[in-house]
Amino acid sequence: MSLILKNVVLDGEKKDIYIEGNEIKKIGNNLNLKAEEKIDGKEEKAILPGLINCHTHAAMTLFRGYGEDMTLNDWLKKKIWPLEAKLTEEDVYWGTKLACLEMIKTGTTCFNDMYWLEEASAIASEEMGVRAVIGLTVLDFLKAGNKEKVEEKRDILKKRKFNIIKFSVSPHAIYTVSKENLIWAKDFAKKNNLLFHMHVSETEEEVKNCQKRYKLRPVEFLEKIGVLDENTVLAHTVWLSDKEIKILAKRKCSVVYNPCSNLKLAVGGIFPYKKMKENNVNVCLGTDGAASNNNLDLFEEMKIGALLQKHREKNPLIANVKEVFNWATINGARALKINAGKIKEGKLADLILIDLKKTFFSPGHNFLSDIIYSGSGPSVSDSICNGRILMRDGKVEREREIMKRVKKIAENLIKKAK
Amino acid sequence: MSLILKNVVLDGEKKDIYIEGNEIKKIGNNLNLKAEEKIDGKEEKAILPGLINCHTHAAMTLFRGYGEDMTLNDWLKKKIWPLEAKLTEEDVYWGTKLACLEMIKTGTTCFNDMYWLEEASAIASEEMGVRAVIGLTVLDFLKAGNKEKVEEKRDILKKRKFNIIKFSVSPHAIYTVSKENLIWAKDFAKKNNLLFHMHVSETEEEVKNCQKRYKLRPVEFLEKIGVLDENTVLAHTVWLSDKEIKILAKRKCSVVYNPCSNLKLAVGGIFPYKKMKENNVNVCLGTDGAASNNNLDLFEEMKIGALLQKHREKNPLIANVKEVFNWATINGARALKINAGKIKEGKLADLILIDLKKTFFSPGHNFLSDIIYSGSGPSVSDSICNGRILMRDGKVEREREIMKRVKKIAENLIKKAK
Repeated sequence: MSLILKNVVLDGEKKDIYIEGNEIKKIGNNLNLKAEEKIDGKEEKAILPGLINCHTHAAMTLFRGYGEDMTLNDWLKKKIWPLEAKLTEEDVYWGTKLACLEMIKTGTTCFNDMYWLEEASAIASEEMGVRAVIGLTVLDFLKAGNKEKVEEKRDILKKRKFNIIKFSVSPHAIYTVSKENLIWAKDFAKKNNLLFHMHVSETEEEVKNCQKRYKLRPVEFLEKIGVLDENTVLAHTVWLSDKEIKILAKRKCSVVYNPCSNLKLAVGGIFPYKKMKENNVNVCLGTDGAASNNNLDLFEEMKIGALLQKHREKNPLIANVKEVFNWATINGARALKINAGKIKEGKLADLILIDLKKTFFSPGHNFLSDIIYSGSGPSVSDSICNGRILMRDGKVEREREIMKRVKKIAENLIKKAK
Repeated sequence: MSLILKNVVLDGEKKDIYIEGNEIKKIGNNLNLKAEEKIDGKEEKAILPGLINCHTHAAMTLFRGYGEDMTLNDWLKKKIWPLEAKLTEEDVYWGTKLACLEMIKTGTTCFNDMYWLEEASAIASEEMGVRAVIGLTVLDFLKAGNKEKVEEKRDILKKRKFNIIKFSVSPHAIYTVSKENLIWAKDFAKKNNLLFHMHVSETEEEVKNCQKRYKLRPVEFLEKIGVLDENTVLAHTVWLSDKEIKILAKRKCSVVYNPCSNLKLAVGGIFPYKKMKENNVNVCLGTDGAASNNNLDLFEEMKIGALLQKHREKNPLIANVKEVFNWATINGARALKINAGKIKEGKLADLILIDLKKTFFSPGHNFLSDIIYSGSGPSVSDSICNGRILMRDGKVEREREIMKRVKKIAENLIKKAK
C-alpha cells in the first residue's frame, strides 16, 4: 500500500508526505509520486504525529459514567466489580473496539493497555487498526492473572499473527501482586523480551501500606527486588520522594502522568513533573480508563496536565507547550519502544491531520499552543496508523455499528450483574 | 418567527418543543403544531439549555496563543498591552465576532463580558445572535474608562436598539479603580438598573495589597463601601476568608469560578467551592478571556472545574454532575437576571442540541455525567438563541469569512504594535 498526503501543513509550511507500506518514505515540496491512496489537505489541515496513550484500560469504556461521584471504595465494590465479575471475551472485544474508535476520532494512534481477557483486546485493536501494547495482567486474586495462566496466554497469543500489537507483562500493583510474583513477572518479561507495565504510587495510602509491609517506599521496594529498568513503564507515580525519582532516573524507567484520573479519583497529590524533568525521567501521558476520566482524549490530558503543573509550582513557565507535546508523542514512543512519535522519513506512518478551519486555531499565532490549550480531540479530521487510513474527514468505517453493539453489550452486562 | 424541534431527547425521553418568538411555548409528545422552521433530532440529538459564560473578555480571542508560557507580568507588558494600545473598534468588533462564533459552536448562548470599545462588542454580539451582558468598563488609567466617558457611552448605547444585549457597569478591580470611583460606579449602576461586574481576589498579592492599603480584605472592603448586593457579579474569588464568604452569602452576590484561567495564570489557590456551597452562594462558571485559557469552551470548564474541586477537598463526592451543570446554566441565568438556563415553557428559547452519535456518549449510562466528563464543546450540533437558529448540524453562517477576517486583523495588529 502507498499513500500520499498533499498540501498538509507541517511546522507551519506546506508539504507533501509519501508513505509506502507502514513507513514515512519521503517528505518534500510538490512530490510527484503516484500512490494508491491520496488525502489532499488543501493547506487547511496540519499534520502531527499520532498521539500515544501510555496508560489505559481500553475495555472500560463499557463502564463510562456508570456510578458517578462516589468514593473509590463504593464505586469499585458496588458498581465496577459486580460488572467485571460477569465480563466475557465478547464484552472486552466490543469495549476495546469502542475505545479504539474514540482514540481514532481524537488522534491517538497507539496505546498501552492493562486489562484482562487480553486476547479479545488484542484482536479488537488489530482489527480497528490502532497500534497497541496489550498487557498480560498479573493479579494474585484473579484466576486468569496467575503465573500459569499468563504463560498459557503468551503461548496462545504467540500462535496468532498480529501486525501492530505487541505485549507487555502487567502486574497490577504492589498491593495486589506478591513480591514473589512481581519477581517472577519481571523474569518472565526479560525472557520474552516484553515491556513491564504496572501501577505505582497512585495514592498516599499505597505508600503507607508499602512502608508498613516492606519497610520501604514503593519505588525503593521495586528497586530492591530488581524490576526497574528501561523496559519498565510505571503509571501514576504521584506520591514519590526525591530519592525515588533519582532511582527512576538511574534505572531509565518511563513514568505515565494521568492528570484527569488523578483529580477525579481525588488521589490528593499532583504528579511531580518539575523534579522528574530535572532528573531527566522520561515522562509520558495517559488517560487511564474511561471509567475514571471519562474519555480517552489525550488533547484534554495535555491541557489539564500542563495547567495542573503551573498550578502545582505556582509558576506559569512550568511545562511549556513543546514539553507537553513531547509527553504525548516522542516520549511515549520511547517508553513503548516504537519507531514513531515524530514526523520524519523512516519513521512509522502513525499520523493525524488537524482541521485548521475550527475556531480553536484562529487567529493562529502559535499552532502548538493552540493544540495544547485550545483545540481538543474533535479537532482531528484524519487518522493514519501503520500507513493505513483509519479516519478520513471525520468518518470511520462501521462506527455506528460499533456504538449500537456496545450499547446492547453494556445493557446486558448490567442485567447480568443484578 | 416560530420553530419546532421534533424528536429531541429531553431528560432521557423523546419530546417535541415548540418555540414562538423568543420563548419556549410548548413541550410535549408528538406536537402537531405548524412552525416556520423545523429541526428533527431523530432521537439522536439531546436537548439542553444553552450554557452561560459568566466571565469573559470576548475580543481577546485576537490574542489567543500570542505569548505563551510567560509570567503574567512579562506577558502583559511585553505582549498584551502593546497590542491593546493599538486596538481599534474594528478589531474589537471582529474579535468579538470570533468569540461569538466559538461560543455558538461550543454551546454557549449567553456571556458576561468585560472589555472596552464596548459598542463594537455589543454590535458584534447582537449581529451574531449571542445574548450578552456587555460591561461598561471603569478603569482609572484608561481614558475611555473614567466617569464621564462611561456616562457618555451609556447615552450612546441607549440610543441604539439592541434585542439581546444588556449592559453592566464593570470596574476592573480594586487595584485599578479607586475607592471613590468604585462607589460612583455602584451608584451609577443602581441609578441605571445595571449589573455590577468586577474581578475580585484573583491572586494572593491582590489580597495582601488591599490589606496594606485599606486594612481590610477585598470583600470586606467592598462590603464597607456598600457595593455588594444581588446585582453584583464577582469574577475569580479564589482567595477568600470564611468571613468574606459569609458576607457574599448575606449580600446575595454571585461569584464566577474560572478554573482554566486560574490554573494557567498560576494564581496558586483553588476557588473555595465547598464553603461557597455550604453558605448558599450562587456559583457560576466562566472561561475568562481566550488569551488565558485558551478557548471559550464551557464544557471543558465544567470538567476541569469539577475535577479540581475533588482534588482540592480530596473527596470524589464534591461537585456532583448536577451541581456542576447548574454552575453553567441556571446559576448563570440567576446572576445575569435572564429568564433562561432551564428548559421549561415560558423560558427564553436559548437551547442547544447534543449529537449523541459521538463516542463520548457511548454506551450512555448517565447522560449528565457524559456531558460533564466525556463530551466537550464540539459535541454540540445545533444552537438556538432567543428563538433563532444560530447553528444547524455544525454549520454557522459566514464562519469562514469571520475567521479569514480575524486572521488579517490579528496580523495587522501585531505589525502596528511593533
